[in-house]
Amino acid sequence: MDKLYFEDLSVGQHFTSATLTVTEEDIKSFAAKFDPQPFHLDDDAAKDTLFGGLAASGWHTAAMTMRMLVDGGAPLAWGIIGGGGEIAWPKPTRPGDVLHVEAEVIEITPSKSKPDRGMVLMRSETKNQNGEAVQVSTMKLLVPRLPVG
Amino acid sequence: MDKLYFEDLSVGQHFTSATLTVTEEDIKSFAAKFDPQPFHLDDDAAKDTLFGGLAASGWHTAAMTMRMLVDGGAPLAWGIIGGGGEIAWPKPTRPGDVLHVEAEVIEITPSKSKPDRGMVLMRSETKNQNGEAVQVSTMKLLVPRLPVG
Repeated sequence: MDKLYFEDLSVGQHFTSATLTVTEEDIKSFAAKFDPQPFHLDDDAAKDTLFGGLAASGWHTAAMTMRMLVDGGAPLAWGIIGGGGEIAWPKPTRPGDVLHVEAEVIEITPSKSKPDRGMVLMRSETKNQNGEAVQVSTMKLLVPRLPVG
Repeated sequence: MDKLYFEDLSVGQHFTSATLTVTEEDIKSFAAKFDPQPFHLDDDAAKDTLFGGLAASGWHTAAMTMRMLVDGGAPLAWGIIGGGGEIAWPKPTRPGDVLHVEAEVIEITPSKSKPDRGMVLMRSETKNQNGEAVQVSTMKLLVPRLPVG
């Protein structure tokens, strides 16, 4: 797919990523490095917690969501460059989940100070194989304007 | 440090984490797995981008921030269990940065439906060795109430 510039985007435009399968090993290895808590590391220990079983760190879900967006889920010309936004994890990501991302353009705004770029507000839902959202986020992304001439 | 319950927390309470040093290898290996874009993978390629040099993925900064909070930066009794919140990356994290997290309790609210827990809104700034914030986030965390009896 061609890379998209500011002028190619419109409010309501949708993107859907390819899928990504989450293994128990993925969950544990991310957790060991970045979020070493029992409910992300050990299935038995996780049973006695609020999660009721092994669950991915929310930041792991966020990182996997980014991977799906970068791998073609949102083909923006400069790549996915985000300044921040909101994030929520309505349900945990579990071992064996098959995730994909559905993204939608919510708002597009030309930069006031820099004529070569604009800002896109993109809402993305990361869904599992049952259509349940494991992450909902709205992020501000930088997008280049079409070069003049 | 003793683990903190809802009753131990108060608005304005501060926590400071230990430091974490970010290597070029850390930045590239996170990026290769979760955010394979040139400005996170290759110093030369990064020079020609908005970042002007190798920079960590924002999600890597988020994951490292979580690690510092889990490692004692915010000693909550159930661990750090977040439902979501806001996040921003005012500046990139660079190779060699020495990060730490400064967290502050912004709001505490007992759960209306579940008498065993409450919600804590925690603002955290992840700062580099120059005191510059590379991440600012405000997250809703679940905290248990002290067991009765």
